[in-house]
Amino acid sequence: MYSETSTRSLAKTISWRVIATLTTTTIVWLVTGRLTLAVAVGGIEAASKMVLYYWHERWWDRIRAGRKTAKPAVIWLTGLSGSGKSTIAVWLAEALERQGHKVERLDGDTIRDIFPATGFTRPDRDQHIKRVGYLASRLERNGVFVVASLVSPYQESRDFVRGLCGRFLEVYVATPLDECERRDVKGLYAKARSGEISSFTGIDDPYEVPRKPELTIDTSNVSVENAGQQVLNLVQASEQA
Amino acid sequence: MYSETSTRSLAKTISWRVIATLTTTTIVWLVTGRLTLAVAVGGIEAASKMVLYYWHERWWDRIRAGRKTAKPAVIWLTGLSGSGKSTIAVWLAEALERQGHKVERLDGDTIRDIFPATGFTRPDRDQHIKRVGYLASRLERNGVFVVASLVSPYQESRDFVRGLCGRFLEVYVATPLDECERRDVKGLYAKARSGEISSFTGIDDPYEVPRKPELTIDTSNVSVENAGQQVLNLVQASEQA
Repeated sequence: MYSETSTRSLAKTISWRVIATLTTTTIVWLVTGRLTLAVAVGGIEAASKMVLYYWHERWWDRIRAGRKTAKPAVIWLTGLSGSGKSTIAVWLAEALERQGHKVERLDGDTIRDIFPATGFTRPDRDQHIKRVGYLASRLERNGVFVVASLVSPYQESRDFVRGLCGRFLEVYVATPLDECERRDVKGLYAKARSGEISSFTGIDDPYEVPRKPELTIDTSNVSVENAGQQVLNLVQASEQA
Repeated sequence: MYSETSTRSLAKTISWRVIATLTTTTIVWLVTGRLTLAVAVGGIEAASKMVLYYWHERWWDRIRAGRKTAKPAVIWLTGLSGSGKSTIAVWLAEALERQGHKVERLDGDTIRDIFPATGFTRPDRDQHIKRVGYLASRLERNGVFVVASLVSPYQESRDFVRGLCGRFLEVYVATPLDECERRDVKGLYAKARSGEISSFTGIDDPYEVPRKPELTIDTSNVSVENAGQQVLNLVQASEQA
């Protein structure tokens, strides 16, 4: 999101005032020789300065100096299937958008739908995570906040993504396995237990708990709003750091 | 690149003038009862309106309406190895940056270096092209111009990428095979001819000539500047379309 610096506004204030006050003084002097009615001055001033002010604004619009954009971040939600990553991601992306930021939400499942050839073997998952991470880093360096929600079970691939990004915030959604399995929103745990699907994280594939996440949230006993607000606070705190 | 609309500037002009002229009139009336020296008025006006103008600017800075960014595009350079895609891409990316745009250059080889597991079979190439295209489309919808240079030999995968993007400009770098092989910048044609590498586009893997590219350039007899300028003209022409 674009915004103007205080210095830029101050510069505009000074440049405009020089023009406007010189004009007022000159007009009053030319019209009366001694300075006359404020209403007449006001009328002339309004008519003439509107034009000057307008072109002054248009001229400033072409100058890039003193323009800044918010420093974005990659917020990476990792955790078991059903832990609440996507729910938090949706809440967070909306909150950041309301603050005027450009936001892109990258959801592991959604991207897999576009690229159905992506498998669940360790090399496949690893490449998937790294590719989404690469995408995230390219968006970030172009001023976009990225909210990524992927199981991303491997420390090494998460660290690879961290290395690509500027401000990388790893959020471990630490909802315990039994709670995730109890929810089983997509019915995947049932399928994994019955053997219908394999290489399922938490059942027959490992989840490597983040070593040093920026934040850990267990969604067993917190609302979406509470969880989302915790992440939002992290984003704001890390901005000031 | 951010800029302000004429409507926005006009609104600022009017809102400021209402405040400023009312203030001038009121001050003159309060100070003299009849309207006095322009120099005195100018002094008071300058001091007081600088503050008002400044906060007026800061207030406006928080309003998003009437702010626009340039409509970006995905410029997709396709053609044989050695055809001159990357050279044109570098020139074009710099030219777009000089115009104040956000630009990301996506080079097939560079991305392959990051993901060395990507092979050269038809499914591998197809996925590679589609993934880069997905990345391009996400950047584009966040205001970034994308200059992509990939051999991207298949019509179907190029069409897939076209479908993902908003303004997709397919540039066929149509330098003939014998010219590309004569250049052989990376020594790959020699390796492909000797059988050291296989599945090499143009030698033992097909290149599907674009059916309806937005632009076709044969770099045999044109300079980089000339080729780049042709693409730049295309970008500008399609913006007005």
